[in-house]
Parts: sequence; C-alpha cells; structure tokens
Amino acid sequence: MPKIEALNFFYLAMPEILDVGDGSQDALLVRVSAGGYTGWGECEASPLTTIASLVCPMSHSACKPVAVSVLGETLDSPADIARIHRKVRQNSLDLLQADHALSGIDVALWDLLGKLRQEPVYKLLGFKRAYPKRPYFSLLFGATPADTYQKARQAARQGFSAVKFGWGTFGCLDLKHDEDQVAAARAGLEDEAKKEAILCIDAGTVWGEDVAVASQRLDILRKCAVTWLEEPFHTYAHRAYCQLARASGSVKLAGGEGAHNEYMAQQMIDYAGLGYIQVDCGRVGGITSARRVFEHAQAKGVQYVNHTFTSHLALSASLQVFAGAPEHALCEYPGQLTPLADQLTADHLEVDANGAVHLPERPGLGLEPDLTAIKKYVMDVEMIVNKRMLYRTPAL
Amino acid sequence: MPKIEALNFFYLAMPEILDVGDGSQDALLVRVSAGGYTGWGECEASPLTTIASLVCPMSHSACKPVAVSVLGETLDSPADIARIHRKVRQNSLDLLQADHALSGIDVALWDLLGKLRQEPVYKLLGFKRAYPKRPYFSLLFGATPADTYQKARQAARQGFSAVKFGWGTFGCLDLKHDEDQVAAARAGLEDEAKKEAILCIDAGTVWGEDVAVASQRLDILRKCAVTWLEEPFHTYAHRAYCQLARASGSVKLAGGEGAHNEYMAQQMIDYAGLGYIQVDCGRVGGITSARRVFEHAQAKGVQYVNHTFTSHLALSASLQVFAGAPEHALCEYPGQLTPLADQLTADHLEVDANGAVHLPERPGLGLEPDLTAIKKYVMDVEMIVNKRMLYRTPAL
Repeated sequence: MPKIEALNFFYLAMPEILDVGDGSQDALLVRVSAGGYTGWGECEASPLTTIASLVCPMSHSACKPVAVSVLGETLDSPADIARIHRKVRQNSLDLLQADHALSGIDVALWDLLGKLRQEPVYKLLGFKRAYPKRPYFSLLFGATPADTYQKARQAARQGFSAVKFGWGTFGCLDLKHDEDQVAAARAGLEDEAKKEAILCIDAGTVWGEDVAVASQRLDILRKCAVTWLEEPFHTYAHRAYCQLARASGSVKLAGGEGAHNEYMAQQMIDYAGLGYIQVDCGRVGGITSARRVFEHAQAKGVQYVNHTFTSHLALSASLQVFAGAPEHALCEYPGQLTPLADQLTADHLEVDANGAVHLPERPGLGLEPDLTAIKKYVMDVEMIVNKRMLYRTPAL
Repeated sequence: MPKIEALNFFYLAMPEILDVGDGSQDALLVRVSAGGYTGWGECEASPLTTIASLVCPMSHSACKPVAVSVLGETLDSPADIARIHRKVRQNSLDLLQADHALSGIDVALWDLLGKLRQEPVYKLLGFKRAYPKRPYFSLLFGATPADTYQKARQAARQGFSAVKFGWGTFGCLDLKHDEDQVAAARAGLEDEAKKEAILCIDAGTVWGEDVAVASQRLDILRKCAVTWLEEPFHTYAHRAYCQLARASGSVKLAGGEGAHNEYMAQQMIDYAGLGYIQVDCGRVGGITSARRVFEHAQAKGVQYVNHTFTSHLALSASLQVFAGAPEHALCEYPGQLTPLADQLTADHLEVDANGAVHLPERPGLGLEPDLTAIKKYVMDVEMIVNKRMLYRTPAL
C-alpha cells in the first residue's frame, strides 16, 4: 500500500505585490509523493503563515503542526483521504491556519490518488462523466466606469457570455459611483451584442453587516439585470444576508469564499438565504470539504459555483467537485491572471468555440505545474527556532 | 495623542512539550508601546504560526500582515481600539490566523489604554465595580479513575467549591471508563465533604457530531449532578448540540472556546442550545470581541464564563470582560499551570478565604509579566524570506 513519503510547500510570488484585490499575485503550491507518483495542490492562503502551520512545534495535543498528520499515512482510496482529513482537523483543532494548509494538501492528495489509480478525480468522486461548464469571466472593476465599460466589451469580445465584476472602489465611494460602475459593465456587454449575457457583481464584504447601505444598490442591480450580488457582507452575517435576500427580488445573493470548513458553508446555505454558494477548494478544506458543501447545496436547492481566482490547477480542482452535475452550470473563470498564475501550469482549461470549459480526461487533476516556468517565482524561506531549521524551501 | 510605536511578539515554551491537552505548555506574549507605557497580552494560539501572520509579506489587499494595521495608530480611547480591531479584520480578511494574532494584540491594547488612562480595564468597559467570581478549578482527567479521584480531593482540600475535569482519555475508550471517571471525580469531592460542590465535565470535542455516543453519557452525568458538559462536539455542530441539549435535562451544555470571532460565538448562543458560552479572549478577537459575546449572552439569557487555561495575565483579561455582572458568577481558574504559565506573572489572582477571585484594582490588567523569570523560556525565532529577516525575536 502506497504511503505518503514527502510533503512540501512552495511559496511563489510576483516580484511586486500590489495593494489590489487580485489574489493571484502569490501562490502556495503543495507537493505530495507516494508510490512513485506526485500530486499537486494549491492553498489559497497567506503562504508564509501557512508554511508555519505545517512545521511549527507542537503546542499541545490539539495544536500540532499539520505535517505530522499527513506524512507516513497510507493512500490507497478516497477513504484514506477522508481519514487524513479528519486526522489533521483533530490534531490541529486549535491551530486556526490549519484549515488553509489542509486545503492545498487535500487537493494534492486527490491529484495523487488519481494518478495512482489512473482516473480523473471526478471519477474517484463518483461521477460517471464531466459535463462542460459555462464560465463566467471574473474581473476586478476598472478604476473608473469608463475602464469597466472597456473591460466588459473586451470580455464579451473574447467570447464570454457571463462576466463578474468586483472589488476595486465598489462600495467604498458613493452610491452614484456604484451605480455608474454597474451600468457601465452592463453597457459594455450590450454594446458587444451580448444583451443576454449574465452579469454578476462582487462587493467583497464591503458593507460589513450594514443592510441599509447595501439595499440602496438593489435598484441599479435589478435595472441592470444582475444575476447575483456576491459578498455584500462578511461571511458570518447570516441575519444581514437574510434581510437583504428578502428585499432583493430577482437579484440573488452569493457568498461563501470566506468559509474555511464545510460547516461554515453549510450554515450559510441553511441560514443566509443564498441563491449561490461559492467555496474555494484552496480554503474550505480541499476537494473533500468542497464536495460536502456541494452535496448540501444540492439537497437544499442552492446553486453551487466554484470560487477560483488563481491558477488553472486550482480551477481544475474546483471543477472536479461538481463536474457531474450539469444543473450546476456556471463556473468562475479567473480572467486576469498574473504571469505567475498563468505560467503555473503549461496547459490551461481553455474556453471552447461554444463558450464552454471542459475538464481534461486525464488522471488526477489533469494539469501539471510547469516547473521550469515557475522556478523564477520561488521564494527562499527559512524558519528557524532555537537554531533548528524547521523549514527551508526545498528543491522544486 | 499617543501613537502605537512598537508591537512585539515573544514565543515562550517549556523545555519539553508533552502530547497532552495542557495548553499552558507554551505562550505567545504580546507587547505594545505608546506614550511611554507598555501593554501586555497573550494569544492562545500556535506561536510560530501567529508570528508569521504578524510579519508575512502582503498577498493582496485583503491579505496583509497584521502588524500593518496596528503600528502607528492613535490610541486614546476605547473607540481607537475598536477602529484598530476593525482595520485588522478588513486588511487581513483572507489571513485565517489573523484572528488569533488580533486577540493578543487587542488584550495588550486594553492593558495599554488602562495604563495611559490610569484605570482598570473593566472601568474602561463601562463597569462601575468588579464583583468577585467563584472560580472553578480546571483540571485534566487523571490517567485512571483513581488518579482523578485524588485530583478531586486535592482540589477540594485547596478550598475550591467547583471543579472541572476534561480531556485525557475521556470519550476515547469505552462507556464504562467514562462513567468511572465521572463517578471518581464526584466521589473525590464528596469525600472531602464537598457534597454541594459544582462538578463540570469537558469532552474536548471528542464526539465530533455523534449525538448517540454523547447521549450514552447523560445518565452518569445526571447521576453525578454534573452542572455542564462542555464541548461534546466541534464548534460548528449546532444541530448536534441542540439535539443533545433537548435530552440532557439538568445537565447544561457549554462550549465556544473554538470561536475565533464574536460571530461564531453569537451563532452558538443563537442556534446550539447552550446553557453556558465560554470564549477565550486569546482566541476570539481579544477583550473587544469577548465583550460583544458577553452582551449577546446577557441579552439571550445564557451564562457567560471565561475560557482560560494559561497564565494569570490571560485570566485577568478574561475576567475584565464580565467583571461588573455578578449574575455571571462562575469563572474558569486554571488549576495545573506549567512553570512557564505560573511564572509568567509575579502576582496571581489568588483565591481568597471565601473561595472567591478578585480582579486587582490597578490600571490596565493589573498584572505585569515577570520578565526576569520568563527570560529562560524565550524561543529564538528567525523568519527569513529572500534573505530579508522578517522576524527575529526581539529583546524582552
């Protein structure tokens, strides 16, 4: 039976990190090895902090470094991944960052198991086939409505029939600014003859739990036929979500990317009045946790959509989770990747002539990191405690 | 107006860390300075991981190191602490460990503000006076029921009229073992003529969300007049908590130490059928967040009890939060501190002849770290990224 022989984290970063909402400016790549194969995953998390959670000294029996629950474990079936997942949660109960570390490790374990079994991950998850998804192009708002208008036209010209704008100054200035931004996005799509295009708006938790301020935006959102308003509030503001949902009419609410375990996402489904649940495999506890969220969403009649704003490795992981469910048709498609995230894999999940995205029919996640291309982004990290080197960036 | 000039973290640890539930084997001490005064706090968290969250490079606009939201800020009133608290949460929205870092920083800021204003923290929180609390002695179960029996007698002899046992092998072996452990604890108290003593049991989340297994223990808990059963399930298992609460009769449920923000704790109060909510200032977001939990508990008729298993500095911080509310009478009193946690402060919150614990009538938290005594526990840490030293243990 294959045992996990190695577990490594690599901190990658662009030479300059800008103070903008683009989460693809750095990456934490996870490598696991067993039985002569290598699996890869990605944590959507602060790289240095997550590395520390992997290697930190034990604080007590329920605050152990994540690595001790993974190395040496048998990996032969999905049940083994579930066992390792449970073990990390138990041994690192009081280590908050552990959920983010576990997320990338879990993704890498599924990739590795797929390679050991020579099956795509979605098949290991019990799906017979992977249906194509309709990608929505995920973009940051332009600095001005005019910029946003151009970005929307450009997305439409690239063939996307669904676009989401978010972050930037949306919600940070006045009502008029927000109205102009949303109207500009819709106008850009229409002027490229995409009248029927889906438009979504992402507020990035900007209103905290202020229902009144969020409600002022509902008119323009309805007028511009916005499909969903994402993260008007922070992840725990169930009551605020519910109040806004009762008033939002045709505009549905979306959220969940802040969930760092399946329970948080399930509670949002149960209590927050969401139309769409969006968890990130790289944060929620990997494919294992995301799959549980998907099943709960299905049972409760809520649409499941991946949250992915990093590499196509992360995108593949996200799509495996709900690949076999054509009724959950949309997927987030990161639209403005940094060179780092773009080069992280040689292959990409391209949008086909019908505007659809397909998972590769290859073992595991079906995409490999481009080790030659990403070498230049690797950060040299050392963590030393009482002269003992707990972590030094390994060879890629 | 005083500005925050310095913010330092110190990782302290016992020479040997045992694989047991004792959370006082290491500590993360926080020091902040402004206007010629120094404030101290403690994070109940993995020290190395939390240090990384303080100093890590920015990943994007909502994943910044915690330090950037604190250094240079004005500190002149409770409103300033609320503003800094909010700023950390916004700037580090996607940095999971930030809540644990914020917790110790917030405690240190309240200590510092108390010193700047020459007032105890509980007065800054709006209380007119600090009422004494009835301490419950918090102990780990013995390895055998006979050990537990001796520990209970010993606690009673020390004058405690309330004792809690937890962790160890409780819930990990069979039903008979658990029954014997609970019965031994009650017998130990009775044999020291403490028939009326409060006995609580802490399961340390051992049953996950398995209501059936937890329910088997209700008989012995009722028979031994146990006041509360703590953490039968993980923090997010609201439904399991509710089901067990409906069947538990005179035994109330307690939980909340896993909450890393006030929202989680408030949701437990609203949805989990708790009799007692127990948050840890060193994890939940400091005194600021704990105070919000206390107010919610009061409004909902749930008893507030501190969770504290580390130093008396942490104990003082915990008690300030609900000092002015005599109807919330109990407090956790860490009973078996490691030498590190014991020596962390020169003064202690002693139990008086009436078996009560009092807060010191001194500015801030009213206790100072014993810098001479704890020097020997300081761990030398270095974190280096691309040859840049992001953290090196500062001089204490």
